[in-house]
Amino acid sequence: MNFNLSQIPDRHLKPRTSGITMVMDKGLSVQEAKNFLSVAHPHVDIVKLGFGTSFVTPNLEEKLEVYRSFDIPVYFGGTLFEAFLIRNQFEDYIAVCKNFGIEYMEVSDGSITIPHTEKCGYIEKLTKHGIVLSEVGSKDAAHIIPPYKWIELMRAELDAGSSYVIAEAREAGNVGIYRGSGEVREGLVQEILTQIPGERILWEAPQKAQQLYFIELLGSNVNLGNIAPMEVLPLETMRLGLRGDTFHLFLDKEAVQ
Amino acid sequence: MNFNLSQIPDRHLKPRTSGITMVMDKGLSVQEAKNFLSVAHPHVDIVKLGFGTSFVTPNLEEKLEVYRSFDIPVYFGGTLFEAFLIRNQFEDYIAVCKNFGIEYMEVSDGSITIPHTEKCGYIEKLTKHGIVLSEVGSKDAAHIIPPYKWIELMRAELDAGSSYVIAEAREAGNVGIYRGSGEVREGLVQEILTQIPGERILWEAPQKAQQLYFIELLGSNVNLGNIAPMEVLPLETMRLGLRGDTFHLFLDKEAVQ
Amino acid sequence: MNFNLSQIPDRHLKPRTSGITMVMDKGLSVQEAKNFLSVAHPHVDIVKLGFGTSFVTPNLEEKLEVYRSFDIPVYFGGTLFEAFLIRNQFEDYIAVCKNFGIEYMEVSDGSITIPHTEKCGYIEKLTKHGIVLSEVGSKDAAHIIPPYKWIELMRAELDAGSSYVIAEAREAGNVGIYRGSGEVREGLVQEILTQIPGERILWEAPQKAQQLYFIELLGSNVNLGNIAPMEVLPLETMRLGLRGDTFHLFLDKEAVQ
Repeated sequence: MNFNLSQIPDRHLKPRTSGITMVMDKGLSVQEAKNFLSVAHPHVDIVKLGFGTSFVTPNLEEKLEVYRSFDIPVYFGGTLFEAFLIRNQFEDYIAVCKNFGIEYMEVSDGSITIPHTEKCGYIEKLTKHGIVLSEVGSKDAAHIIPPYKWIELMRAELDAGSSYVIAEAREAGNVGIYRGSGEVREGLVQEILTQIPGERILWEAPQKAQQLYFIELLGSNVNLGNIAPMEVLPLETMRLGLRGDTFHLFLDKEAVQ
Repeated sequence: MNFNLSQIPDRHLKPRTSGITMVMDKGLSVQEAKNFLSVAHPHVDIVKLGFGTSFVTPNLEEKLEVYRSFDIPVYFGGTLFEAFLIRNQFEDYIAVCKNFGIEYMEVSDGSITIPHTEKCGYIEKLTKHGIVLSEVGSKDAAHIIPPYKWIELMRAELDAGSSYVIAEAREAGNVGIYRGSGEVREGLVQEILTQIPGERILWEAPQKAQQLYFIELLGSNVNLGNIAPMEVLPLETMRLGLRGDTFHLFLDKEAVQ
Repeated sequence: MNFNLSQIPDRHLKPRTSGITMVMDKGLSVQEAKNFLSVAHPHVDIVKLGFGTSFVTPNLEEKLEVYRSFDIPVYFGGTLFEAFLIRNQFEDYIAVCKNFGIEYMEVSDGSITIPHTEKCGYIEKLTKHGIVLSEVGSKDAAHIIPPYKWIELMRAELDAGSSYVIAEAREAGNVGIYRGSGEVREGLVQEILTQIPGERILWEAPQKAQQLYFIELLGSNVNLGNIAPMEVLPLETMRLGLRGDTFHLFLDKEAVQ
């Protein structure tokens, strides 16, 4: 940090297993990725190449090399996994990951419907090739999953080998754990937390009010995802109580004036 | 493309006359234009320097050189054409374009009112100096043009020599072919398409839901404009069915599971 | 300017004391700051490092050097001042500013409550160390300050030595002089202007409609703040009547067609 301030909440340091910030890169150029990491690298734990953007990105290997040079793991968005799967190209997916040196993989069913045991089978298979994140929650706003079902799905996926379960929000933050308006389904979130350890959940929270909700609920070291590159530093200040919204959250009322 | 996926819709390759992506540059620096093109160049057909930004942009020639090096034509936003026109500086406009090596020109009447035969006269004159795009639809939300009139105007402008007619949306996507909320005026769009060939229309569609509407209606190779630089790759994945919203659009239901 | 257009409103040139554009940098990297300034430097008067971002920004000194090389003063957001203050580290704040060569300072009470004479005391003390800007208006939407009180506070802060009083809006533009919807509290603004000289007020106006309101009310050379880096050139065209919204604002009706 650039200067001393008392009463800054303890923030886990990298490499950390909770307090993770996952960033969505939806098409940065090599130089933009370099610029971004030069200022954000201490605060970024993992980068997702959003949906199918990796298919149409020139110089992809060079960009992956940039992330590698900062020791930041990268994975392909779940939509790409599903695109391979629905085309019966699951083995190709593994080959592509290997080919690009991708060691993190997301298993999701946001756009396709597959029996859950089959989904868990993919998780299990992919754990032989890398670290697996799996996503729960449909991208389809009309398809609501009741809380007990979220818990059941998350538990089974963690048991199958997922390192983290991702609570779906889409890039815009308006499905899954959120209402169409972006508002958090608070009852859902709190019920999930009665059964699933918070450190194993990665909450997609692209909107500022969503990030604030989770920091207020779970503290500085909550896992947050789908953060835009230019929002990483603002989020970090929110985690530390150095933004208006969380200014008083971590202060010891007695120690200050 | 970086790997093989079956059932990707046929996307016209550059140089193409339909399936165009027009990007609005509203003030990129030289280095930002380089960064942007290094990753987006295969997916960008033409760049507009939004409204009057070219008036206040330092190093404009150097930026134009960057676009030229990627063989991407550039034009000044229609508002600038109108700014010259209302000041009785039409000849100066031609001189400025020549001076900067600008070979595409937009003729519009979004902020000014001119008789339509006069507008068509400008289109005709400018075709002697370059490729003309002309825009239909007022920037004034209170001034609604009925569908038959849109068709009449578009047809006359194509006859006068426009290569494409642009359906106005403004940077924000909330006038012209859209309601104030950004919602598409579907009846208008569909009526226009009964009379004007879709390949000759460039739909301004800055919002994601607007892009989705036109891809669903007209397919991968619809012409879309006013795309923000950082949205070019996300749009390209939407055109290819590699984003949640269009995931199923191009899949052969029989060939997949 | 890159070409000649008649009837462009007189825009004060830098260094200027009114017509100021204040930009919020909420975490640019060194290279991004260079890119930004290479195209925006003639149009930027002062840069704020938003809220506490300077605490978590690597290479902060190097970035400050970039701003210095363009002769653009930088200051820490008021939230950081308050973070030092509430921790009884006011003297540390002065030392940190000195240490980083920061000569502009913001005194605010957006997140904390302090007696106003005490706030004016801080303003007075800091004028011995640099140029002071002070902010009026709570970040708390529920805490409405009546117009006469805004005037009283602003007058006292100018008397205490503030070079400018900043009318609070937050990064999002939805508190202080704005309603939750972002709409301007017009009665408030106009009443303030009956008593406080407009040239001494810096209006935070992150949203385009807010910028438009103030340009329509106070002209090209109004002081505007919390402008995003990529919005500097669009704002400059709005100040000059080269964007749809202000196209007719500065035209002499008789001189044009």
